[in-house]
Amino acid sequence: MTLRVGFIGFGEAARTLAGGLGPAGAALRAYCRGRRHAPPYPAEFRQAAAALSVELVDTLEGLARASDVLVSAVFPEAAAPVGAESARHLRPDQLFVDVNAVAPATKEAIAAAVTARGARFVDAELMGAASLYGAAVPLYVSGSGAEEFQRRFTPLGLNVTLIPGPASAAATLKMLRSVVTKGMEAVIVEAMVAAFRAGVAPEAFTAITEPMDAIKFSDFARMCITSDLLHAGRRAVEMETVGEVVRGLGVEPIMVDAARRRLLWSAGLGARPAAEGEAVTDYREVLRLYDRLDRNRFPTEDSS
Amino acid sequence: MTLRVGFIGFGEAARTLAGGLGPAGAALRAYCRGRRHAPPYPAEFRQAAAALSVELVDTLEGLARASDVLVSAVFPEAAAPVGAESARHLRPDQLFVDVNAVAPATKEAIAAAVTARGARFVDAELMGAASLYGAAVPLYVSGSGAEEFQRRFTPLGLNVTLIPGPASAAATLKMLRSVVTKGMEAVIVEAMVAAFRAGVAPEAFTAITEPMDAIKFSDFARMCITSDLLHAGRRAVEMETVGEVVRGLGVEPIMVDAARRRLLWSAGLGARPAAEGEAVTDYREVLRLYDRLDRNRFPTEDSS
Repeated sequence: MTLRVGFIGFGEAARTLAGGLGPAGAALRAYCRGRRHAPPYPAEFRQAAAALSVELVDTLEGLARASDVLVSAVFPEAAAPVGAESARHLRPDQLFVDVNAVAPATKEAIAAAVTARGARFVDAELMGAASLYGAAVPLYVSGSGAEEFQRRFTPLGLNVTLIPGPASAAATLKMLRSVVTKGMEAVIVEAMVAAFRAGVAPEAFTAITEPMDAIKFSDFARMCITSDLLHAGRRAVEMETVGEVVRGLGVEPIMVDAARRRLLWSAGLGARPAAEGEAVTDYREVLRLYDRLDRNRFPTEDSS
Repeated sequence: MTLRVGFIGFGEAARTLAGGLGPAGAALRAYCRGRRHAPPYPAEFRQAAAALSVELVDTLEGLARASDVLVSAVFPEAAAPVGAESARHLRPDQLFVDVNAVAPATKEAIAAAVTARGARFVDAELMGAASLYGAAVPLYVSGSGAEEFQRRFTPLGLNVTLIPGPASAAATLKMLRSVVTKGMEAVIVEAMVAAFRAGVAPEAFTAITEPMDAIKFSDFARMCITSDLLHAGRRAVEMETVGEVVRGLGVEPIMVDAARRRLLWSAGLGARPAAEGEAVTDYREVLRLYDRLDRNRFPTEDSS
């Protein structure tokens, strides 16, 4: 049985998935009603869809009728209304998949509307840039339809990881991941804009990336957390000097100042003396210690 | 001829270098006058030095007399006075190497004191955590003695890269690198403290690190800059939602808020419309464009 997939919205995320699913044998359709593309679709847009073997459909109802799986891939602000409107057209045998970058609470609201119709909801999160990974982008899925999504799409080449927990469990992980990915983008841009001003952009790019290319990122991340316990205070002081250098190059040290504050927060917990004597080599021990010290410092009503 | 290396200060940096240089055949000595270790050295400290085949010396003058190369590896606040005091003991045939994390201006002041004695100055910067790389840690060197440093220490196993430019050229690169490395530490700690609160620390660690382990960091860094041009505005909006989620977990979104501001800066340059039509795939083009737009927006006296 050919799986019939209907995309609501046809931007980068949908096109990336379509580029993998089409050749794998899925029947693809799309419906758009955005700022740039809406029925009657312009010729250029029809050609782009046809190049990916995607048939454009003129109504949401028509798309829902012709699909086993509906995939919402729209602008974040449209995710909730599109979810509510789509739910009205859903049959109990259908999957509704939301790939949008919206808050866990929004995912839960859409899930409620979908499951109220007897259909199953899938929170699907792209855990990487479509431009880097293509259709093999890691997809984290949660919700009542997550297992079925994995069963049906893994054979079609998608890279699916099942996340247990509430309907929005994958969205929570995506948000936490975005702290790091967008944060890294911001620190890299800040450093490289300053490096350009200093006339050493290529040298700085090499200095920043070559040592990172030589190690596994997961080892680096573990080391960040375990060494934060020991060196956050010293590094916060170093960041004052780093901030002066960046500012001296005419660039506002936004990320440098924030990193200094975050390192001061770590140092201020008093975790280093609390851990004295034990060699803490497991990042999870550091997180447990930070959490305990932070709660003790600012007792809240629900802490015992 | 055995190379005689004298360490001023004997903390992690000095011990890491000693661990490589000793077995490679250098004669190692050290002098300390810090908060914890000063002559007469405690037995425990003598044993730690002896285990690395390092002879402890009781005066800075004695260390200088017995060394071909003096390496200053002290607390940052001590770097300038140690440089000034050491200079008084230097002979013209000696190298003075400063590995401390201090501002380029401080390195220049030390370089001036050293070269005034006829000796040669080396600004040597550890471009990675000693704990991760050991004695093979990438060392960037600049200054009047940089070439000699590379010639003498490369055969002893050190990983030396020559940086042309002023005496402090390596320090400037280290500072720019610290924007990224300490910034990444801060975003990873912020995300993982929040993940611990959400009860999903192991899942978040995997979600953050697995996709990064699958790609080269340098490719990621290039993509960050080129995609910042196109998506900074949308991502800044996403960071509002991310901040709400982090705050909702009881963690102050310090890095998230800063990243949102940095992304808004990028978006506010108007670089996307300025680049319309051209596909910008080279990160250096993005930096050039950002620099031009930023200077045009806030004209300064020295811009034409």
